[in-house]
Amino acid sequence: MKRIILSTAFLLICSLACAQQALWGVAPVVSPEIHNDNTVTFRLKAPNARQVQVTGDFLPTQKVKTPYGEFDAPGVADLTQVDGVWEFTTAEALAPELYSYTFIVDGLKINDPSNVYTIRDVVSVTNVFIIGGERADLYKVNDVPHGSVAKVWYDSPSLGMQRRLTVYTPAGYENGKKRYPVFYLLHGMGGDENAWSELGRAAQILDNLIAQGKAEPMIVVMTNGNAALQAAPGESSLGYAAPSIQLPKTMEGSFETAFPEVVKFIDSTYRTIPKKQSRAIAGLSMGGFHSMHISKQYPDMFDYIGLFSAAIMPDRQVQSPIYDNLEEKLAVQFAKKPALYWIAIGDKDFLYQANCEYRKMLDQKGYKYGYYETGEGHIWKNWRIYLTEFVPMLFK
Amino acid sequence: MKRIILSTAFLLICSLACAQQALWGVAPVVSPEIHNDNTVTFRLKAPNARQVQVTGDFLPTQKVKTPYGEFDAPGVADLTQVDGVWEFTTAEALAPELYSYTFIVDGLKINDPSNVYTIRDVVSVTNVFIIGGERADLYKVNDVPHGSVAKVWYDSPSLGMQRRLTVYTPAGYENGKKRYPVFYLLHGMGGDENAWSELGRAAQILDNLIAQGKAEPMIVVMTNGNAALQAAPGESSLGYAAPSIQLPKTMEGSFETAFPEVVKFIDSTYRTIPKKQSRAIAGLSMGGFHSMHISKQYPDMFDYIGLFSAAIMPDRQVQSPIYDNLEEKLAVQFAKKPALYWIAIGDKDFLYQANCEYRKMLDQKGYKYGYYETGEGHIWKNWRIYLTEFVPMLFK
Repeated sequence: MKRIILSTAFLLICSLACAQQALWGVAPVVSPEIHNDNTVTFRLKAPNARQVQVTGDFLPTQKVKTPYGEFDAPGVADLTQVDGVWEFTTAEALAPELYSYTFIVDGLKINDPSNVYTIRDVVSVTNVFIIGGERADLYKVNDVPHGSVAKVWYDSPSLGMQRRLTVYTPAGYENGKKRYPVFYLLHGMGGDENAWSELGRAAQILDNLIAQGKAEPMIVVMTNGNAALQAAPGESSLGYAAPSIQLPKTMEGSFETAFPEVVKFIDSTYRTIPKKQSRAIAGLSMGGFHSMHISKQYPDMFDYIGLFSAAIMPDRQVQSPIYDNLEEKLAVQFAKKPALYWIAIGDKDFLYQANCEYRKMLDQKGYKYGYYETGEGHIWKNWRIYLTEFVPMLFK
Repeated sequence: MKRIILSTAFLLICSLACAQQALWGVAPVVSPEIHNDNTVTFRLKAPNARQVQVTGDFLPTQKVKTPYGEFDAPGVADLTQVDGVWEFTTAEALAPELYSYTFIVDGLKINDPSNVYTIRDVVSVTNVFIIGGERADLYKVNDVPHGSVAKVWYDSPSLGMQRRLTVYTPAGYENGKKRYPVFYLLHGMGGDENAWSELGRAAQILDNLIAQGKAEPMIVVMTNGNAALQAAPGESSLGYAAPSIQLPKTMEGSFETAFPEVVKFIDSTYRTIPKKQSRAIAGLSMGGFHSMHISKQYPDMFDYIGLFSAAIMPDRQVQSPIYDNLEEKLAVQFAKKPALYWIAIGDKDFLYQANCEYRKMLDQKGYKYGYYETGEGHIWKNWRIYLTEFVPMLFK
């Protein structure tokens, strides 16, 4: 039987790939290049471009005027061209962090063709890179035991559909018999059941904190808080419809009312400890709003509650039994002395004042809670920090 | 307690998002737009561009010359500009299929900023869209019961590392007690444990075929066939290193030798039917090579074998006991009469001739196998087709 020299086949495949690269204009440059001193060089091969810029959260923010006021937006830096390759190197070392960026070529925003790593945040897709060290080492995949991440569908009779959630089970779950506490982790408006595992680096943070002995092994359940949807954009029967920042069934009571279905599904499907003392709930922005209202509506369900940059009060025009008798329900919840009620926010967050007022009310009533304040505003950098702070306090 | 009108907060968030969109140049155009007659319009807002083209597998292929010969590459079409918006509409309706495309702006390949849906194929990231109908309806998320898809780590003592795999469990697995057959589904060179679930639409194909009663409910295990790696690019402790098309430990025996570890892990972790009659293995290209060599090396492990556009013979220079005594091992395997030995390939595949020679040898020996030939070459379109054909034949 004749042997085929497969090296030839490899050459053919590589050749095809190279031909495609040449055809498709994939730039044969390294970008981003993270130097040993943590400065970073961005490169784009674009001989025909007249202007190339980079924008991202690694640059100082700049003010942007809108009809609703002035806001901080990511800064913009110019790349300079030599022999068709545009380049920009940061003036200073970047602090450890997960950063996102895009290029702007002659006014058109594009992803970096040299960097295959992107994350979608609501309607924008950006490239990402990590500067390691300090807290950002928790965001990396390290050589530690890894938990599993599953995309799981459950039936929601009250919302009338199958819905998807993301479930992290800690290393050792699969081949063990142990039961675990459960942490429900909720996203913000425009997010979905992928947001915490992608932008939030939840699996990496849990893997690393558990491996360091700083967090209890736990199951983490990341739901989809848009009650009109089955699943994240592109992953439901809506197909590849364009994602939307605002959806009809958010913060109007449906998701909160249906939440016990999720807990029931998780308790019947996974080896959980199905008790209040072994359940936590936290979320960012709208997810903080959901966590606050769900935890007071079902005061025997969660012993650990986290509000990260939370929206607090419902729109006056929204009618739902969930939002009725707020103060009475809070009184019941706090009379039961939750193990942890924790509020975190950045001092430049547009919800900062609302959180101050909420804390003031809690103080006046004498309700105990933890408080953690950072700089900056309503951004994923803060939510990753809050997660790394919150998780070690759970189930201890 | 003062109520905050959250509509205002929504406006702020939307305003910020719009500001970002304006800043980041996200094009406020719809692209791709799939018309009712299945023609498709691509649009890009790029007032400063001098030339905009689209390339993708929805266009007729064109010949590309390389040092190794002429190859078919995706075609290229020109967009025309009106008021800063470039546009191209296909002349004819597109056939049902999952298509991928990118734009080329003044020679620079970019992803479509109006389409957040992308898939990475080895070193290229392209946008995707689906034209429904016929077989392509199997590639869509439909309103049918959905299986779960998990990213799971297992310990590989022989490769000296934790490694990741993707596991599809059929709808009903979580809350049932039933045991299931297992189908091991392997990727090609440059691919990874994500390839079949992303480019291959494996979960959608399984969900739909099972819901239609055409396939048995089964577990599908998608491994990482690059024995030097823990996991897909970006998901291992290598961090966001650039992916490579060729790796040192592929097709040299390591992966095949270590394969029983995978089967052992799956059988000890999931509710499987741990018998030859309830195990299948198939793969594309290098994965077909792996399936062929693993199934003959362990002739009591798999009763269903699929070679999709398979590489067949090892490089002469590669030394591994796995590749020794090939004909004797095949004789043992076929003497045990596998329930299905199935070969599929496109008539323009660069491995077509090698597969003809392999089939000729099987014919000469009188070994029974199924054969399925399509048009075109070494492309995902064919591998999705082969999956939809192979799965209904399993475990019956």
